[in-house]
Amino acid sequence: MDMIKRIITKRSAKTGAPPGTLIHVGERKMENPRITVIDYNEKIFDEKQIEEVEECIPFKNRPTITWVNVDGLHDVSIIEKLGKCFNFHPLLLEDILSTEQRPKMADFGDYIFIIMKMLRYDASIDKIISEQVSVILGPSFVISFQEADNGDVFDLVRDRIRKGKGKIRKMGADYLAYTLMDAIVDQYFIIMEKVGEKFGGIEEDLVYNPTKERFRIAHELKRDVLLLRRYIWPLREVISGLERSESPLIKNPTKIYLRDVYEHAIQVIDTIEIFREMTASMLEVSLSSISNNMNEVMKVLTLIATIFMPLTFIAGVYGMNFRYMPELEMLWGYEMVWAIMISVVIIMLAYFRKRKWI
Amino acid sequence: MDMIKRIITKRSAKTGAPPGTLIHVGERKMENPRITVIDYNEKIFDEKQIEEVEECIPFKNRPTITWVNVDGLHDVSIIEKLGKCFNFHPLLLEDILSTEQRPKMADFGDYIFIIMKMLRYDASIDKIISEQVSVILGPSFVISFQEADNGDVFDLVRDRIRKGKGKIRKMGADYLAYTLMDAIVDQYFIIMEKVGEKFGGIEEDLVYNPTKERFRIAHELKRDVLLLRRYIWPLREVISGLERSESPLIKNPTKIYLRDVYEHAIQVIDTIEIFREMTASMLEVSLSSISNNMNEVMKVLTLIATIFMPLTFIAGVYGMNFRYMPELEMLWGYEMVWAIMISVVIIMLAYFRKRKWI
Amino acid sequence: MDMIKRIITKRSAKTGAPPGTLIHVGERKMENPRITVIDYNEKIFDEKQIEEVEECIPFKNRPTITWVNVDGLHDVSIIEKLGKCFNFHPLLLEDILSTEQRPKMADFGDYIFIIMKMLRYDASIDKIISEQVSVILGPSFVISFQEADNGDVFDLVRDRIRKGKGKIRKMGADYLAYTLMDAIVDQYFIIMEKVGEKFGGIEEDLVYNPTKERFRIAHELKRDVLLLRRYIWPLREVISGLERSESPLIKNPTKIYLRDVYEHAIQVIDTIEIFREMTASMLEVSLSSISNNMNEVMKVLTLIATIFMPLTFIAGVYGMNFRYMPELEMLWGYEMVWAIMISVVIIMLAYFRKRKWI
Amino acid sequence: MDMIKRIITKRSAKTGAPPGTLIHVGERKMENPRITVIDYNEKIFDEKQIEEVEECIPFKNRPTITWVNVDGLHDVSIIEKLGKCFNFHPLLLEDILSTEQRPKMADFGDYIFIIMKMLRYDASIDKIISEQVSVILGPSFVISFQEADNGDVFDLVRDRIRKGKGKIRKMGADYLAYTLMDAIVDQYFIIMEKVGEKFGGIEEDLVYNPTKERFRIAHELKRDVLLLRRYIWPLREVISGLERSESPLIKNPTKIYLRDVYEHAIQVIDTIEIFREMTASMLEVSLSSISNNMNEVMKVLTLIATIFMPLTFIAGVYGMNFRYMPELEMLWGYEMVWAIMISVVIIMLAYFRKRKWI
Amino acid sequence: MDMIKRIITKRSAKTGAPPGTLIHVGERKMENPRITVIDYNEKIFDEKQIEEVEECIPFKNRPTITWVNVDGLHDVSIIEKLGKCFNFHPLLLEDILSTEQRPKMADFGDYIFIIMKMLRYDASIDKIISEQVSVILGPSFVISFQEADNGDVFDLVRDRIRKGKGKIRKMGADYLAYTLMDAIVDQYFIIMEKVGEKFGGIEEDLVYNPTKERFRIAHELKRDVLLLRRYIWPLREVISGLERSESPLIKNPTKIYLRDVYEHAIQVIDTIEIFREMTASMLEVSLSSISNNMNEVMKVLTLIATIFMPLTFIAGVYGMNFRYMPELEMLWGYEMVWAIMISVVIIMLAYFRKRKWI
Repeated sequence: MDMIKRIITKRSAKTGAPPGTLIHVGERKMENPRITVIDYNEKIFDEKQIEEVEECIPFKNRPTITWVNVDGLHDVSIIEKLGKCFNFHPLLLEDILSTEQRPKMADFGDYIFIIMKMLRYDASIDKIISEQVSVILGPSFVISFQEADNGDVFDLVRDRIRKGKGKIRKMGADYLAYTLMDAIVDQYFIIMEKVGEKFGGIEEDLVYNPTKERFRIAHELKRDVLLLRRYIWPLREVISGLERSESPLIKNPTKIYLRDVYEHAIQVIDTIEIFREMTASMLEVSLSSISNNMNEVMKVLTLIATIFMPLTFIAGVYGMNFRYMPELEMLWGYEMVWAIMISVVIIMLAYFRKRKWI
Repeated sequence: MDMIKRIITKRSAKTGAPPGTLIHVGERKMENPRITVIDYNEKIFDEKQIEEVEECIPFKNRPTITWVNVDGLHDVSIIEKLGKCFNFHPLLLEDILSTEQRPKMADFGDYIFIIMKMLRYDASIDKIISEQVSVILGPSFVISFQEADNGDVFDLVRDRIRKGKGKIRKMGADYLAYTLMDAIVDQYFIIMEKVGEKFGGIEEDLVYNPTKERFRIAHELKRDVLLLRRYIWPLREVISGLERSESPLIKNPTKIYLRDVYEHAIQVIDTIEIFREMTASMLEVSLSSISNNMNEVMKVLTLIATIFMPLTFIAGVYGMNFRYMPELEMLWGYEMVWAIMISVVIIMLAYFRKRKWI
Repeated sequence: MDMIKRIITKRSAKTGAPPGTLIHVGERKMENPRITVIDYNEKIFDEKQIEEVEECIPFKNRPTITWVNVDGLHDVSIIEKLGKCFNFHPLLLEDILSTEQRPKMADFGDYIFIIMKMLRYDASIDKIISEQVSVILGPSFVISFQEADNGDVFDLVRDRIRKGKGKIRKMGADYLAYTLMDAIVDQYFIIMEKVGEKFGGIEEDLVYNPTKERFRIAHELKRDVLLLRRYIWPLREVISGLERSESPLIKNPTKIYLRDVYEHAIQVIDTIEIFREMTASMLEVSLSSISNNMNEVMKVLTLIATIFMPLTFIAGVYGMNFRYMPELEMLWGYEMVWAIMISVVIIMLAYFRKRKWI
Repeated sequence: MDMIKRIITKRSAKTGAPPGTLIHVGERKMENPRITVIDYNEKIFDEKQIEEVEECIPFKNRPTITWVNVDGLHDVSIIEKLGKCFNFHPLLLEDILSTEQRPKMADFGDYIFIIMKMLRYDASIDKIISEQVSVILGPSFVISFQEADNGDVFDLVRDRIRKGKGKIRKMGADYLAYTLMDAIVDQYFIIMEKVGEKFGGIEEDLVYNPTKERFRIAHELKRDVLLLRRYIWPLREVISGLERSESPLIKNPTKIYLRDVYEHAIQVIDTIEIFREMTASMLEVSLSSISNNMNEVMKVLTLIATIFMPLTFIAGVYGMNFRYMPELEMLWGYEMVWAIMISVVIIMLAYFRKRKWI
Repeated sequence: MDMIKRIITKRSAKTGAPPGTLIHVGERKMENPRITVIDYNEKIFDEKQIEEVEECIPFKNRPTITWVNVDGLHDVSIIEKLGKCFNFHPLLLEDILSTEQRPKMADFGDYIFIIMKMLRYDASIDKIISEQVSVILGPSFVISFQEADNGDVFDLVRDRIRKGKGKIRKMGADYLAYTLMDAIVDQYFIIMEKVGEKFGGIEEDLVYNPTKERFRIAHELKRDVLLLRRYIWPLREVISGLERSESPLIKNPTKIYLRDVYEHAIQVIDTIEIFREMTASMLEVSLSSISNNMNEVMKVLTLIATIFMPLTFIAGVYGMNFRYMPELEMLWGYEMVWAIMISVVIIMLAYFRKRKWI
């Protein structure tokens, strides 16, 4: 049942509601939503956590770059107020709240809307966790929405802004949006390493000593790979859409960087495809390997049966209690029977050798 | 035989008839056709059930939005009259009546014709039921045709119009057509949840304890998934056709909404593909798992046979009734035989241990 | 050997001949070729069977629509004369005579040349028969060529012309050509029903009670489906080529009808793909099912062997004839042996229960 | 090892040489290269075998069509001189000498360069032989290069020129090039027939009586089909490249003929794809068939073992030599044992019948 | 674990660093980096090894062609200085240092950046080694970066420049870049030969005598083929991108040569695809072959068991020690039992012959 949850998020609650209706689809992943605002340019840096959405209005028209980050989506009113404040399209707000979206990109003219999947490996439950991250890129602002506080991924970006590392303070909002995307795609490489480790961990074993447990792991790996593919595959279009976009929101110098993320995404997809093909090959080889093992087992059984069944029969014959059995009375009868039995063994072995079984 | 019915609707009756001949192809799914007319704009709302097709003529040229819904297709004359009344192309009418159509979209200039499949899960027979819905979008009217009364799906839309929920009363006929499409696609998510549940229900079992019954379910799931794919796949083209259409019937604000339905459809298709791949993987793993089980069984058999066959043979030898068998007369003969037999067992076990069977 | 004939028609006779050489490639399927001419417009209708090709020359330049139908291709001279008469390209004539052509469409400017495959189910040999139909569409004439007299398919069209059913008498030669194509595609649905029936007939059985005979049928079905696919798949291009054609020979009103045939063809192709996937799934499931059955059989065998082999061995031991076997002399020896044997059985059964075999 | 040779021609000798270096890659297939020149137009016909490349220079600028055919490529100097004489690009000469090229087409402006594979079935070694044919088409000349003298294929063309059969004497150099291509593609049909025969020869057998030898043949067929595909697949692009070419070297009337060869190539490719799918299906069905057979065998074994093991055990019990075994002394003991044994058989048979094994 | 390393290079160290951060990702493959400068035109040739990056600055603006080759990437400062010196984009420098890049091509206007994979077969560890080669093509310079000193591949190029072999001294920097690419692609053919040899080495064996070891090799081959595909597949785009490029850096005469490398790359990809399909077929056939073998083994076992079990039972019956067993006392009892036993054998053999097992 767990699997369905991973493939299909229940949307039933929403069925029939008019489009643009704001309902949070997904689990509530944190207690209280948190809104952080970072406002900067080459010289200025201002960072604060705000309580009320309204507090971020003044930042809207400032020439500095403003990054509003919202952690936690279950409080629909926050999204609604933000939407009103910045005049966003209702469908956009609906998409932010529906956490089962495919990665996508939509150019609304005044702003560009991007949905991506952030992937995290949760060691405690040995599972890959996916969370939806929505990013709205405006002329001088970036608003990002996360289902929960995945602090450390975006913290690195925050840190770079704070300390003015790299070019980030010198570039516009588009570069900030790129940086967030880059941070997310960077995580994918870590996930790939995790999957690769699991993969490497069962590969040899599955081929040589297949057990139910290992088949279960292989099957789960395949499922994980399929799910990852689903999250990452549409990213190609998203990023190349941004790169080829003619929107004035994305300036040319940033496009080279987008090309770079694009290539990273392709690299991840390549790796996923290799895992997919390798899993198939692994199962195929393991099936052949099992059949081969069984063949060996059967040969041993047949060998033993074929040698001892006739012998036991012969012994059985002379174990019969007929009154008149001439052989029993013969002087060398016993020795002759042994001779016959040994001949049978030799003939059988010769036959098997001829058939290349031994 | 049931399966053929699900894949191929009998069209034989129609073979050879001139194109445009109106014959109802499909089952009769309700007693009497029912025609409902809803006429509205931002201020006006009028809803009634009509008996005669002619009654809807006056609505044709009113500036208000008119939605004519026809439930039940077996009464060909209704469709014919409607067709004459609105001056529809005969092939369009023929398509409405042929319930085995693929989802499609055709722009006739004055009106746009859309065919979709409405899917419903019928719990009583544990089956997914598909019904054809045809929608004709004109400048200020929408005419929809259903095979049977699937009330509740479109009722939600009716309710929204009645109560003026959302934007529907402020938008044109194109938005109404979109709303109907959206309602249909929303149903697909429910179907996907159903399939997902069935899937999750047998997955573990099929891999660990495969039985004929479970294989049957897996095979049926695969069939269902293939049929769903067939109904939903062409939807991509239909919706993107509408979205890219240059027809004045579809206004720009509605296109963003169409994009939204398009993305929902893609999401459903993605899920279908995952189910397809997972079913394949499931069968593959289960085959390996069965072979593996058999291997275990064979090893036990071979072990037992390999140990007891030689022993039984030895016992057989000394059960022979030859008059002259020196061993039988030996004082420690019996004990020696036991010693030999125990040695055989030890050697065999050592051999199996070496081959890693035990 | 029969299969090769169905996949590859012998063209060896033709190898090396200059292009445009008229040689009939294929079987002779009827005694004497038959040429029928129908000449009509909205008011006039004239139908006759002619003996000499030359008789159809006068029809060539009349404003009425002329349909010349040739049944039987083995008499090369007829095709040649017709070709000269209407000034057709030699390659076109060669194609008409080569009955192994793929469906194709070629626009020669003054006329359009179409090759299709007519499919018929021959109940007497339980096989699907394919025949090549070539159609040449000129400004006011249609010439059709069939390998044999498949009367009834085109007879329905003839009948419609005779009786003026539908629009056929009001439309041009392009509509007539469309009607012929439509009649051929309509046949495909009947073939699909036939295949579907065969399919449904073995599906259940193959999964539950696979036998050689059923595998043979499944394999043949797969072959049939592949062959059908080969005949029908190229049709998509043919029809969409006609639809998108800018030739003045095809008028706009006819294009909507061509779209309709196109959709029918796609529907048939969809069904073929489903059959293809279902056959694969069927074989896959049946393989799993067989392995599963074998597993059950093996478990029974192992159970029996594992219980009775030790027992038989014990009985064998006390069947030995050693002079000094203390147990034999014991008062309760026989009962003790039974006790041991029953313990063995209980232990074995417990072991099997633990492994979940019983 | 033979297979590598068929997939990869050793190019090691060439590694590191500057591009345009003329080295013959491939086997030497004939003793002495042979150069034939045919010069013709509608009225003139001149054919001779020349010793020195220089002899063909005078033909270069004549208005007549000149066909130079070179059999045997190992003498690099001939190719080099021809290249200088006609001023060909060094890479073109290199390609002619590298016999492992893919079919390709390159337009060098003044001339068009075409590489194709000629296939021949060599009955003596039961193998399909591929040879590279390069064709250079200039304004009034065609130069063709073959690895060996495959006389008869091009001889038919020569014969047509000599006798003025067909249009060949009336058309230009492009038509001659087409004719050569057509002759090569015609050979493919013969190869397909050969493969089809082999295929038909093992199909039935593989499904019903699979043996190692038959599996070997199936595997080899698959390999052959893959190799053929590799040779023929790129031809599509080559011919359609020529057809769509805007080079003045290819005149419009010839394009219809090129279309014809194109369709023949597609037909061959179609057939190859069918063989590919059929081979897969064949192996799949044969695997199921083998498993099915084994199931039957196992059932017989289990039946026999399950019936006779308990019986033998019972007999064993009463073969024991305990002093005190009350049953042995009973008057009807022997008959009772028989009764028990017969009951066991009946119970077992009933059990098997219930499980539908017999 | 080794496999993960081959599929995924650890990038974790880099995660979160701002783009353009120069960190060497990959193994350190040589002790000290080495920089070689070759400066040449048709008349001049100057070659030296330099210690400090700054030494190559004077070469930058000379009209002669300058080739700077850097072996060893772990010393980030070298790359950095070179980057500053030539004013390269920071992302380009980052890419050079990240050795897990996909082959790619980027046109930066003033220079073109190319990443390729050089493949080498290391006989000592029986593995294919891949190393990243980056090439920057400027108006009159080429800078190449290698992870280690793969001397001999580029040495051949150096030698050609030194000795003025071929056209290289007469052509520009683009031709030099092409020559390097050509040298790399030439290596692929050698790798293909190696894979082909391995492949040919196990093919026969896997089909006839499958062993675990051979399955392991097959699985590894499949993995190798997948990895090769990953390295070589993107090359198509890279080279065709260069060929279609409108950059003034690539002159027309060089494009014909690029076409040539392109075709070589396609040829390698073709071969990889054939290996992929052949490996699949090999495993498939080998699975059938194993099953077939097992079938043979099972038949022998069943034959032996079915013949000797009844015989042993009969012998067992007359080995019973009942006091009253009339048969035992019969004069011809023993001979009759033999007669019965022989009949049983004959019946069984007849049965088997009927079922075509013997």
